[in-house]
Amino acid sequence: MPALVDLVLTAVDNAWATRALSGIEAEATDAGIGVVMTIARDTDEWMTRLMRRRSEGAVIVGLGPTGVQLGALAAAGIPVVLVDPVIKPPDDVSSVGSTNWEGGRSAGEHLVGLGHRRIGIVDAGPGTLYNAARVDGFRSALTNAGLDLPTSRIVHGDWSRDAAGEAVLPVLAGADRPTALFACSESMAFGIYDAAASLGLRIPQDLSVVGFDDLPEAQWATPPMTTVQQPTAEMGSVALRILLDLIRDRRAPRGRPRGVTRIELATHFVVRGSTAPPEA
Amino acid sequence: MPALVDLVLTAVDNAWATRALSGIEAEATDAGIGVVMTIARDTDEWMTRLMRRRSEGAVIVGLGPTGVQLGALAAAGIPVVLVDPVIKPPDDVSSVGSTNWEGGRSAGEHLVGLGHRRIGIVDAGPGTLYNAARVDGFRSALTNAGLDLPTSRIVHGDWSRDAAGEAVLPVLAGADRPTALFACSESMAFGIYDAAASLGLRIPQDLSVVGFDDLPEAQWATPPMTTVQQPTAEMGSVALRILLDLIRDRRAPRGRPRGVTRIELATHFVVRGSTAPPEA
Repeated sequence: MPALVDLVLTAVDNAWATRALSGIEAEATDAGIGVVMTIARDTDEWMTRLMRRRSEGAVIVGLGPTGVQLGALAAAGIPVVLVDPVIKPPDDVSSVGSTNWEGGRSAGEHLVGLGHRRIGIVDAGPGTLYNAARVDGFRSALTNAGLDLPTSRIVHGDWSRDAAGEAVLPVLAGADRPTALFACSESMAFGIYDAAASLGLRIPQDLSVVGFDDLPEAQWATPPMTTVQQPTAEMGSVALRILLDLIRDRRAPRGRPRGVTRIELATHFVVRGSTAPPEA
Repeated sequence: MPALVDLVLTAVDNAWATRALSGIEAEATDAGIGVVMTIARDTDEWMTRLMRRRSEGAVIVGLGPTGVQLGALAAAGIPVVLVDPVIKPPDDVSSVGSTNWEGGRSAGEHLVGLGHRRIGIVDAGPGTLYNAARVDGFRSALTNAGLDLPTSRIVHGDWSRDAAGEAVLPVLAGADRPTALFACSESMAFGIYDAAASLGLRIPQDLSVVGFDDLPEAQWATPPMTTVQQPTAEMGSVALRILLDLIRDRRAPRGRPRGVTRIELATHFVVRGSTAPPEA
């Protein structure tokens, strides 16, 4: 067993990252291992730190390490596991995510089940893997119910509350406005709350809203937000277990072939006060 | 310079703790030092981990280590710095906090300055050092303005939103209800928001509310919350610098006497939408 493993995060100033961190730390504590935390503030500096310290292994959360970076870590003999990578990882790198497609689909099914027919989505653009899966899952639920998702009801935010709020305004102000919207993150769902308030639209009476993540602010929202919950802490603890397996394998005398694992943990749909049947 | 220092936290699931963590990590990165993170889940287990790992030094955030624990760490030669200790630390232990008394006083002065005369407070009970300082500073501002703070307008929460909301209900429902309340934390201020809403009282028209901390949710609140901001990240980075000084001193050949530091960083008053002059 290593005495220490590394944890690399983009930031700790959001509840998503700290939940992942908490899961990793708890699992490490159970195994009697210390976690050295690194916040990746620029592109390569975190790698230098891992190499200098001769890290025994690292869990990398929410970054999109490049092939070059992952190759350098492999060459240095540092096993890594990615949690929710921003871009698709190479085939020889293990990763843990959540069932983003299923999560998006559950959001669509919920809104269809409530009787909505004019349904839209606020996504974060094509740049991230998990965003694309959420959009596809959502569209699949609509298609399955015989509904379409016209481009006029696909709004591109950029993960931020303000950008999503501005982008969705013209769609909500239009004559044929949707009666329900799914946002691919809760920060963007809050942008929808803002836009609805500025137009005098009530949630959920005039507009149903579904978010994604289940951060604490979803519960505190007025009305409390219906959302797709990610098992974030569990993702962290599973990643740490995989990393320990990789480290053990590397130390095995014969160097038997290392199994690459790609795990998606199930999302869970949480119904709160921001969704309701459309008003007649 | 040590290669690694330890960081002990009670939890990472709140923005206060993660800001402190972020300040500590940034300062350590600048110094080329790794931070090993430990979440103190039970009373003594974190100590065992520090001892077993022969920690070179630790920043301890938001716990109230006992004299026995601090003595054991000193005996093991592990220097420590406390950030926002829950109880008063022994005289030979360094600590970093914020100006809680001044912060409480600034809240009182703001409400008095707006013209409020019937003013109350929701505190967290007598158990924690920083709570007591906030209450005293607040009372001082009222006394200075010739106002009193009768026990009927001192409400005891227990840091939680729900408990604070329940505790404040009878005070807000009374005939002589206060026109302004200061809560010693934002979670308790949210409890006041809840109680006011359930009684049909509007914030700030019928009731002004001031919180303490300036966590992200203060900005997101409806209305955005006037609050006392703590320099939490800075508290973390200052603590790390003090720790590195202690480690250097310990390594100095002559063992010159180690200076104990007790630093309070200034709070900052942030005016938002939850306070206004009382309605005539």
